[in-house]
Amino acid sequence: MPRASERSAPRKAAASTRASRSNPKSAATRERILDAGASILARYGYAGARLEDVAEIAGVAAPAIYYYFRSRESLIEEVMQLGASRAHEHVRSALDALPSAATPLERIEAAIRAHLEALFELSDYAAANIRNSGQLPEQIRKRQYEQEKLYGALWQKLLEAARTSGEVRTDFDPYLTKMLVLGSLNWTPEWVDVKTTKLEELVRQAQNLILSGIRA
Amino acid sequence: MPRASERSAPRKAAASTRASRSNPKSAATRERILDAGASILARYGYAGARLEDVAEIAGVAAPAIYYYFRSRESLIEEVMQLGASRAHEHVRSALDALPSAATPLERIEAAIRAHLEALFELSDYAAANIRNSGQLPEQIRKRQYEQEKLYGALWQKLLEAARTSGEVRTDFDPYLTKMLVLGSLNWTPEWVDVKTTKLEELVRQAQNLILSGIRA
Repeated sequence: MPRASERSAPRKAAASTRASRSNPKSAATRERILDAGASILARYGYAGARLEDVAEIAGVAAPAIYYYFRSRESLIEEVMQLGASRAHEHVRSALDALPSAATPLERIEAAIRAHLEALFELSDYAAANIRNSGQLPEQIRKRQYEQEKLYGALWQKLLEAARTSGEVRTDFDPYLTKMLVLGSLNWTPEWVDVKTTKLEELVRQAQNLILSGIRA
Repeated sequence: MPRASERSAPRKAAASTRASRSNPKSAATRERILDAGASILARYGYAGARLEDVAEIAGVAAPAIYYYFRSRESLIEEVMQLGASRAHEHVRSALDALPSAATPLERIEAAIRAHLEALFELSDYAAANIRNSGQLPEQIRKRQYEQEKLYGALWQKLLEAARTSGEVRTDFDPYLTKMLVLGSLNWTPEWVDVKTTKLEELVRQAQNLILSGIRA
């Protein structure tokens, strides 16, 4: 059974979406629509994300969105992809910034912090991605999955390095542990209220819980 | 801005939904529609759940669903509520079945197992609930939240008892820890493939990770 298919805008609008990126003003509007899309997706989820709301936040008329994006789905897909790539990039930069003497456990500690920063501080993109990754139509889901695998590989390497160094327990399965750890971080946008939970406290608790959980 | 409102079926159909519960055959069909709804919601999520697919699995004509449920949303809400209450009930029963000499940490260990059993063995209801709790229209979400609070209170008590007994670290915040722990469990339906991951192995890894994480 085919799942929700992309509803395309009229051909003329679709053809113009490429041209718009080269004009600085157009590029800025396009960016604003993406930012608004990230904010709405992070807040209301895939089912509840309405183009009218995106347009309102971006300060454009709703039909204008089709000048920049072929369909609601293609806007959502781009937000999801940016969410994944920006979070990945942020975590990788945080790891690169560590002194070369950092131990594998210290690298995991830094990755936990950077993952939570991406979800709560960087922008709405990562939260939009995480909160909706399981809700997408199958076509988008598949492309999304490729990006997730790359990020998963980064964590897998972090855990395997810690295992090789003898810093972590040997009685755990690296894949299952990695997914349980990422789960505890990825679920945070479902419950953390940034008005009452301090990011610093959340980071510290997550680091304590996870590092104690895996330490040899 | 108002979010997705309930699309009601014609008045006649709505009026008949109550009568149908007292007839055993009707009750069985209703149950079958709920089961199908749980299966579709667990698999495709709130946005992708189509009544045609629910009807196909339940073996009824799609319009017949309106004989039993006022709207798509009221079917989904009932599935979500059953998911929450059945999971809660299963965890509570598992705790009640423990010997009275069980330590607070042993009780947490049992709760981890029961929570994962509810997600993967009991039925599709708990997974349908967990995978969609952040995707619901605001009205349903609010009622849903009341149920989640009750279940959260059960875990809060488990952790506080372990803290009082001195079995767990005192440098953690019980609320943040509880939510991080539940997050690692609640994220599992996003990635566990029951064809390749054995529940027993998942339970053991989750228990190891979490208990080591909180133990004094």
